[in-house]
Amino acid sequence: MKYHKMNDHDLKALRAMVGPDRFFAGDEIEKDYSHDELGTVSAYPDAHILPLNKEEISQIMKYAYAYNIPVTVRGAGTGLVGASVPIFGGILLDISKMNRIIELDKDNLTLRVEPGVLLLDIYEAVEKEGLFYAPDPGEKTATISGNISTNAGGMRAIKYGVTRDWVRGLEVVLPDGSIETFGGKVVKNSTGYSLKDLIIGSEGTLAIITEATLKLMPKPAKTVTLLVPFNTREDAIKAAPQLINDHVLPVAMEFLERQSLQFSEAFLGKKIPHDNHPAYLLLSYDGNHDEALNADVEKASALCIDKYNAIDVYLGDTDERRNNIWTVRGGFLEAIKASSDQIDECDVVLPRSNIGAFLAEVRQLAKDLDVRVPYFGHVGDGNLHIYFCKDNMDEKIWQEKIEKGFDFLYKRAFHYGGLVSGEHGVGYAKKQYMNEQLGPNQIRIMKGIKQSFDPKNILNPGKIID
Amino acid sequence: MKYHKMNDHDLKALRAMVGPDRFFAGDEIEKDYSHDELGTVSAYPDAHILPLNKEEISQIMKYAYAYNIPVTVRGAGTGLVGASVPIFGGILLDISKMNRIIELDKDNLTLRVEPGVLLLDIYEAVEKEGLFYAPDPGEKTATISGNISTNAGGMRAIKYGVTRDWVRGLEVVLPDGSIETFGGKVVKNSTGYSLKDLIIGSEGTLAIITEATLKLMPKPAKTVTLLVPFNTREDAIKAAPQLINDHVLPVAMEFLERQSLQFSEAFLGKKIPHDNHPAYLLLSYDGNHDEALNADVEKASALCIDKYNAIDVYLGDTDERRNNIWTVRGGFLEAIKASSDQIDECDVVLPRSNIGAFLAEVRQLAKDLDVRVPYFGHVGDGNLHIYFCKDNMDEKIWQEKIEKGFDFLYKRAFHYGGLVSGEHGVGYAKKQYMNEQLGPNQIRIMKGIKQSFDPKNILNPGKIID
Repeated sequence: MKYHKMNDHDLKALRAMVGPDRFFAGDEIEKDYSHDELGTVSAYPDAHILPLNKEEISQIMKYAYAYNIPVTVRGAGTGLVGASVPIFGGILLDISKMNRIIELDKDNLTLRVEPGVLLLDIYEAVEKEGLFYAPDPGEKTATISGNISTNAGGMRAIKYGVTRDWVRGLEVVLPDGSIETFGGKVVKNSTGYSLKDLIIGSEGTLAIITEATLKLMPKPAKTVTLLVPFNTREDAIKAAPQLINDHVLPVAMEFLERQSLQFSEAFLGKKIPHDNHPAYLLLSYDGNHDEALNADVEKASALCIDKYNAIDVYLGDTDERRNNIWTVRGGFLEAIKASSDQIDECDVVLPRSNIGAFLAEVRQLAKDLDVRVPYFGHVGDGNLHIYFCKDNMDEKIWQEKIEKGFDFLYKRAFHYGGLVSGEHGVGYAKKQYMNEQLGPNQIRIMKGIKQSFDPKNILNPGKIID
Repeated sequence: MKYHKMNDHDLKALRAMVGPDRFFAGDEIEKDYSHDELGTVSAYPDAHILPLNKEEISQIMKYAYAYNIPVTVRGAGTGLVGASVPIFGGILLDISKMNRIIELDKDNLTLRVEPGVLLLDIYEAVEKEGLFYAPDPGEKTATISGNISTNAGGMRAIKYGVTRDWVRGLEVVLPDGSIETFGGKVVKNSTGYSLKDLIIGSEGTLAIITEATLKLMPKPAKTVTLLVPFNTREDAIKAAPQLINDHVLPVAMEFLERQSLQFSEAFLGKKIPHDNHPAYLLLSYDGNHDEALNADVEKASALCIDKYNAIDVYLGDTDERRNNIWTVRGGFLEAIKASSDQIDECDVVLPRSNIGAFLAEVRQLAKDLDVRVPYFGHVGDGNLHIYFCKDNMDEKIWQEKIEKGFDFLYKRAFHYGGLVSGEHGVGYAKKQYMNEQLGPNQIRIMKGIKQSFDPKNILNPGKIID
């Protein structure tokens, strides 16, 4: 073990930094803090600490750096790849109490927030001012620093981009306790290597985010949702890219099959109309002018029916109808989770033109392995969420099957020009696959980058490239 | 001198790799290749080589890596900070002959290009297909890899972002000659540290771009330009952020003063109407529906006049009127360059709310130093271009004055939450200022990153952090 094993002296010193109310050790640590949302990897920290500000974090890191103690940052614990699990023990730095919105700056259209602010609180804070933070990951109770750490994407990526595109600046604490600012309230930046963009997506391995400056824009006045049923999944998938390049950009474009839809309805105890067709595209368009938006929606509807073989187009043009549809779409992961004793997931991203061919291989794989493999996808941006369900299978067989299955999927994704993760990250669970896909040169460079931020490798060790 | 000085043996070996038509050494090298557009630093390479493909670049780099020869990449040479000047001699790798558009993929809305394709050729290739590449830097004859290397911004950043936001993937040759791909045709990516985003803005110091995959979108159907005169510069500058947060996002928002406008008119021999007011905002709005766009423009006009003290609003709603206005705006840099024997420039970026206060300090500085300092600015995104004009001043006095002036401007920009460069980069000319602003921790991290890509420091040495 290359790390210092924390002793009573360490615990006492660290407890004194934050006080007893925000410090837990040994048996005081709740089980929830030993795993993330998916729970495929678990480990307890030696101390669970809840800092209130960057100064406390800096002080804790100076101690950890001096004594060679591993530190893992945790937000809301909604991750799916074990990135926030302290696999070497040490300190679990839980930033959930740093949840203040610091400043909404209307002149610069920026929002400064602490790292533990939840996504849903950001929406609330800006939308009441007529402003808009566009990234829309499924899990609204994730923290913003969790979103930044995985470069979370979500449903609106096709029109508005991903979290990366909405982060203007970051304040961080480095592993040695120094406090640094990357970027700022500025729209452009060509001042050296973009350390901000390195932190984004680095899953807590390079630095600890203590403040983020987010980009905002004026909120589009209106959004309309279209649920478009098709007779075959092939028709739906084929329509997707054509609909994008024939027309204005939709805000969102999701692909669903009947099975997932009805599964989620049953789980939520909620029905939506028109739920009995083989496959669907779920589209959103937004705009500031009713007539223009209506024209966009009418053109999309006409294209779907006249050109792309859609059965019909159902309009979610009232808040209630729209919310119902998106609630059912939002329930997919929970419904799948509830349906099995254990699941594991694959979050590949592909060029959107290759989704149909890839999903055919997924279905064949499920048959070959004899595993239930539900999936759904952000067909507009090429990001698929594919779930393997254990369904009380023997543990050893399950491990063999998912290893074989993941290995196949990642290799085929690569063949189609895809990558291991679109938005959930690599963390602990996917690092083997990323290493294989990117190859030794890129891994060597990433290790060099890690070394330059964290020479003692104390920050979230065992993740991504470690 | 830590580098190997190229000898006849090296020249012969390298000449054989590309053939005599694309290889120049010694007196064969034209003066143009010893400096960039601004020409404040100059140096000749030992060999000027024009590769045609990544294999040739890989072969050249393997040789340079083995023999410790510095290599500097050059595109169209339109840079302003000396980034493409081979200050340690060695090889000047000129990618201007790698100028093919490889693939326009309508299903994925991506464009694959070689690094030497010019920005104007990209516009032409995609716009005739009804598609849009949004970044709009002033210099249309720059290469795309030059744009990527400086993370060029341009006029449309406020609505559409900067070059970084439009690069989905990069193929590069590493200093040791290996060929790697970062990203791809994918919309989302959370697969390890974003090496793509490190290359963007790294000014040719980390790897050589051999192919870029750009993001496209459907082209907005129509754009309208508004030239809005004000009685004072303070009124114009104050209106800018308010107009943004009170309304939909403009595509562009530029700030001009009468002097720069008339200066450019005289240089171009071209007049536009309404050119005799003290200050202007130049706005663009775009959209897909005439009525909606007209409503946006009418609201912007009404806000300008009723709320922000504009004198009037002149509409550039025909191609000719719009082109005239933007041609005059586009002529600023050339007009300033032509007006003096030598100029130097400052490309700071600030939170847009602080532009007024900062520009007041710029004007006072010009008085204090007794130097002519014309400027103009992307007021919508906070990026200012400020020029010091030598006007035949004594060389020693000039050097003293610009050093004092730059030092003051960068310190004040930092005070206002700004950064050294918004879009022109750091290169050779600004590295001292960036080093001071970012401080030792960030420079140490950047040096570690450089080391992990380029352990022998042969790629564009002496730039940014070297």
